[in-house]
Amino acid sequence: MILNGKELSKNINLRLKQRCDNLNKKGISPGLAIILIGDNLESRKYVELKKKTCLKIGVDFNIREYDNNVTDEDIIEELVKLNNDKSIHGIIVQLPLPDNLNELNILNKISVDKDVDGFHEINAGKLFLNREITFSPCTPLGCIELIDHYGIDVEGIDICIIGCSNIVGLPLSMMLLRRNATVTLCHKYTKCLKNKTLNADMIVTCCGVPKILTQDMVKEGVIIIDVGINFLDGVLVGDADFDNLKNKASYITPVPGGVGPMTISMLLKQTIESAERLINI
Amino acid sequence: MILNGKELSKNINLRLKQRCDNLNKKGISPGLAIILIGDNLESRKYVELKKKTCLKIGVDFNIREYDNNVTDEDIIEELVKLNNDKSIHGIIVQLPLPDNLNELNILNKISVDKDVDGFHEINAGKLFLNREITFSPCTPLGCIELIDHYGIDVEGIDICIIGCSNIVGLPLSMMLLRRNATVTLCHKYTKCLKNKTLNADMIVTCCGVPKILTQDMVKEGVIIIDVGINFLDGVLVGDADFDNLKNKASYITPVPGGVGPMTISMLLKQTIESAERLINI
Repeated sequence: MILNGKELSKNINLRLKQRCDNLNKKGISPGLAIILIGDNLESRKYVELKKKTCLKIGVDFNIREYDNNVTDEDIIEELVKLNNDKSIHGIIVQLPLPDNLNELNILNKISVDKDVDGFHEINAGKLFLNREITFSPCTPLGCIELIDHYGIDVEGIDICIIGCSNIVGLPLSMMLLRRNATVTLCHKYTKCLKNKTLNADMIVTCCGVPKILTQDMVKEGVIIIDVGINFLDGVLVGDADFDNLKNKASYITPVPGGVGPMTISMLLKQTIESAERLINI
Repeated sequence: MILNGKELSKNINLRLKQRCDNLNKKGISPGLAIILIGDNLESRKYVELKKKTCLKIGVDFNIREYDNNVTDEDIIEELVKLNNDKSIHGIIVQLPLPDNLNELNILNKISVDKDVDGFHEINAGKLFLNREITFSPCTPLGCIELIDHYGIDVEGIDICIIGCSNIVGLPLSMMLLRRNATVTLCHKYTKCLKNKTLNADMIVTCCGVPKILTQDMVKEGVIIIDVGINFLDGVLVGDADFDNLKNKASYITPVPGGVGPMTISMLLKQTIESAERLINI
């Protein structure tokens, strides 16, 4: 069965629009600010998608664009303004940053209470320690929402995660662990990856290697969550060889139309939740 | 081969004593403060051990004792004092706390810069995100120091961790992952634990179940790190069945005399490092 992230995200976005309307009635207009630096085409495309979804749902979209010559100080000055701006409920700095900027230094200047990408040290610490979480990284959150929607229970199952980034693999491993899955973290130093994937009930590919997961590497009925976004001969493909896996897997996410749209929905969800929190304070 | 934590910790403590002497010459006397609440016998024993090691190395040992009736506010008031006390370089609250106290609330009030147990959200977040770390949890740190001392290279090996606590299993999994090991996180919901252990090059037991790891569950030449501290018929035993495993394993930690003494050395190491940082500021 196809895990249809495109369809699910549409439904989520409809519900988010309602929540947004409710906030509007109370005089609150949820606002997302994006800092976009440089001329990375991919980044511009992602930001365009986020903008489109904001407009659809009714979240105010605020973009601050800078060229490659901008300094850490310029960005931090802008972040301080956005942190103090009551009309802004979520702030993200679109990654990757140009080499001359210090990602760590910049990301930690985003207010913990507006960190809708969930990249701040304190939000990461809360996730790691299983404490009450304000914001989590959006892609893992989207994966969890997707498997929950399809009623997939991960308790006690063996999950192999390929790729251990701070943005996807690691936070997702924590979320799955807290749902009592047994998690194996694999990466480029892993020996005999096939041994790991063959024994897994669920495989999450998030390493950015086109079609690294092939049919011979999985058991019948496996669940595959493909987070990869790669271009192969000009065509968008995931980290899994979808065409040859779709009949062997019990569930599989397509690329595009799987995890991707879920990520944007989760970003907007966290922005709206941030605005809703304001009412309850 | 036995991974002799007792001996290694003695050598580390000797070197720590020298660093402590050097600090004394510069007019700095490293100070550790421990908050001990209630009458838990185990806790009292651990605190006694910490005190003994402090005295040996030359670290000032400051204990604040409270009975079970103490409130969160009392403890936090004391923590604020200790945070501001320039003679104190490390603060720990001995766990577990009596049920009426809020562990999360209390631990996060320890200054990030004196959190020598590494339990603060920010220090946990740094560990999780692989950022420059001030303090890490002492037991995992002791395990790493032990395997490093014996020249065990974990890059690319398969490691099975049994037990996913915030204090041992999870932080250790991050440290091993950053050294490029493939890590499988197991726990009480894991199915077929034996399948996981049989395929592992290294097994870390930290679940507090006496002798859960038996000879038939491991392959020849496995490395076993036993973090368990259990009492079975009045005898201190680990989570591994040491007597029957010691000839099958290439390396194994005994209990007692393995990871335990390393933990205390790491606590003192982090306290002294904290004092040394003061000179460099």
